[in-house]
Amino acid sequence: MTHRVINFYAGPAGLPLPALERAQEELLDFAGTGMSVMEVSHRSKEYDAVHEEAIALTKELMGLPSNYKVLLLQGGAHLSFGMIPLNLLRNDKKADYIVTGNWAEKATKEAKLVAGDRVRVAASTKEQKFSRLPHADEIKVGPDSAFVHFTSNNTVEGTQWHEFPKVGHVPYICDMSSDFMWRPFDVSPFGLIYGGAQKNLGPSGVTLTIIREDFLEMCEAQDLPSYLRYKIHAEKNSLYNTPPTFGIYILRNVLAYNKSIGGLKAIEASNKKKAELLYGCVDKHSGFYKGFVTEKAHRSVMNVDFFLPTPELDDQFVKEAKKAGMVGLKGYRDIGGIRVSTYNAVTVDHVKTLVDFMEQFVKTNG
Amino acid sequence: MTHRVINFYAGPAGLPLPALERAQEELLDFAGTGMSVMEVSHRSKEYDAVHEEAIALTKELMGLPSNYKVLLLQGGAHLSFGMIPLNLLRNDKKADYIVTGNWAEKATKEAKLVAGDRVRVAASTKEQKFSRLPHADEIKVGPDSAFVHFTSNNTVEGTQWHEFPKVGHVPYICDMSSDFMWRPFDVSPFGLIYGGAQKNLGPSGVTLTIIREDFLEMCEAQDLPSYLRYKIHAEKNSLYNTPPTFGIYILRNVLAYNKSIGGLKAIEASNKKKAELLYGCVDKHSGFYKGFVTEKAHRSVMNVDFFLPTPELDDQFVKEAKKAGMVGLKGYRDIGGIRVSTYNAVTVDHVKTLVDFMEQFVKTNG
Repeated sequence: MTHRVINFYAGPAGLPLPALERAQEELLDFAGTGMSVMEVSHRSKEYDAVHEEAIALTKELMGLPSNYKVLLLQGGAHLSFGMIPLNLLRNDKKADYIVTGNWAEKATKEAKLVAGDRVRVAASTKEQKFSRLPHADEIKVGPDSAFVHFTSNNTVEGTQWHEFPKVGHVPYICDMSSDFMWRPFDVSPFGLIYGGAQKNLGPSGVTLTIIREDFLEMCEAQDLPSYLRYKIHAEKNSLYNTPPTFGIYILRNVLAYNKSIGGLKAIEASNKKKAELLYGCVDKHSGFYKGFVTEKAHRSVMNVDFFLPTPELDDQFVKEAKKAGMVGLKGYRDIGGIRVSTYNAVTVDHVKTLVDFMEQFVKTNG
Repeated sequence: MTHRVINFYAGPAGLPLPALERAQEELLDFAGTGMSVMEVSHRSKEYDAVHEEAIALTKELMGLPSNYKVLLLQGGAHLSFGMIPLNLLRNDKKADYIVTGNWAEKATKEAKLVAGDRVRVAASTKEQKFSRLPHADEIKVGPDSAFVHFTSNNTVEGTQWHEFPKVGHVPYICDMSSDFMWRPFDVSPFGLIYGGAQKNLGPSGVTLTIIREDFLEMCEAQDLPSYLRYKIHAEKNSLYNTPPTFGIYILRNVLAYNKSIGGLKAIEASNKKKAELLYGCVDKHSGFYKGFVTEKAHRSVMNVDFFLPTPELDDQFVKEAKKAGMVGLKGYRDIGGIRVSTYNAVTVDHVKTLVDFMEQFVKTNG
């Protein structure tokens, strides 16, 4: 019996066991080729089938309309932070960024490096230490805005846009790194969605990018190095250069597994149940566990942040949980406390085990 | 017994079996963590040990002096083609590029997108269809050149710089994607060396980059998106953002294996033996197998290109070899014929099997 722990890491994070077992089984002999998938040419028909399946499953699970392209890129959200303004903020175009946390702040800073003051802050909750999202009346979007950028889930702070920001008819660009495919949603207001795979979808090193055709057409940057141009990747079906084949293979395995368990509706139900259990326990013992997020409607179902009465108790909690087979619970360095990351691969049973542990911990230390 | 074939793909390519077996064994439980290496935080001590070991093994195997930094990046050689001029050709700096094949041409074209005419062609053998390298007297390097860029091995055409180009005291920047660590060499004339891992070193999705400190200091581009800045990656030890952790883990496994078999001296001996066997057979049957490269001193030990008397015989050769358990022998689309890629993981025995097949093929079809 393989030793496995319950993984609450914020990313890279746990993956569905069947997706990994499939990889382990055929690691030396993939699809009857007598080679590992890592050893097969990205131009071979065997790899091509995986590449196409990863794209097709993304389209199917997300219900993407035909005017969206799926790109399989590299460099994580960080490289995307630069590629977005380099491609889409040419010729004096302007955009509005909503700043709701650590990652949204980085995205904004990187865009400003490229486009300076043409990158405007539509709203920020930095004064509130990002403990909530902005309210509708706090968001100011210019009528001349090419897009509004936001971060759908704030991994560090544990807030999440359950209803997307109200910005009129301006299209969204969204960093979904930490809540990609956590539920079904209507993609039609989105011009571009991007995210590193390493939370909900696969290993680090693959950047899933979904771009609408009119946004592709906006990418006029013919003087940019080719790797940085969305249009080239779209024209070449993400085979302009050698893609990260093994990472895409694991993404395929994860998506195939997600489909087999009922797709995004089933995943949403599981995620909501997990959040209910965790926040239920936090609220029940609100004298002991204190949530970081100040408005319940903004609480993330992916990252649940809370503090114990003292930093010493936080540390003890993390240590004892580790002894009980649960890892990755230490809060982000800038915030402290506890962070429970409950991405898609974390099961309701995993969360029940943690909640039992939390109940016991209050009894002993509360 | 796992079914394995002999892999002559040009990249992604075969990897040493022990490096893959190690990955398979601990794919669900890495270093006793109860998690796959893909599932572990890049800030965890268990991943950090792998990251540090991959860097240390690179330094040790290559004998890097202390004024070189090892970076583990993404985006392959393609992204590096852009990052090099973006970082190193600021403020009217000029550079000379030696054009010896398909990849060298791409590197030059991408650099021109960024730096225009400040990117000069020092030499080109395009008129010779890249069937040889330029001679010393054909290479013109300006006294004002910040660096000379060359491609140490031309994967498509099968030429290789056994002695590096004579360019006075101008530092080199070199794309070593297809012959990284094939032998020991003196790195001191090199300001920067880069390459996708997917030929000699690991899976696609990891770009090994080695940069000298004075070159790092030349990287003044503070208005570039952070992911594109070598200096930031160097300052953060390639942990500025989430690195491609699984790819780096496999790189570590490959390098550890390379060390265990005697390091680059042993690997060089094996590579030379393989080339001797293959070119020996081609030359012995020069009426049947016709090499693409016109000067023997320029023949690559990594990619051996030759033609059979007719394209039909080329096809038959590829098909029959496949039946005999050898894959990846079809030549690059622009050239045709046969290409035998004999990267580090291809053994002398693999090549002997192919040479036996070639001997038999001449007998039957010659």
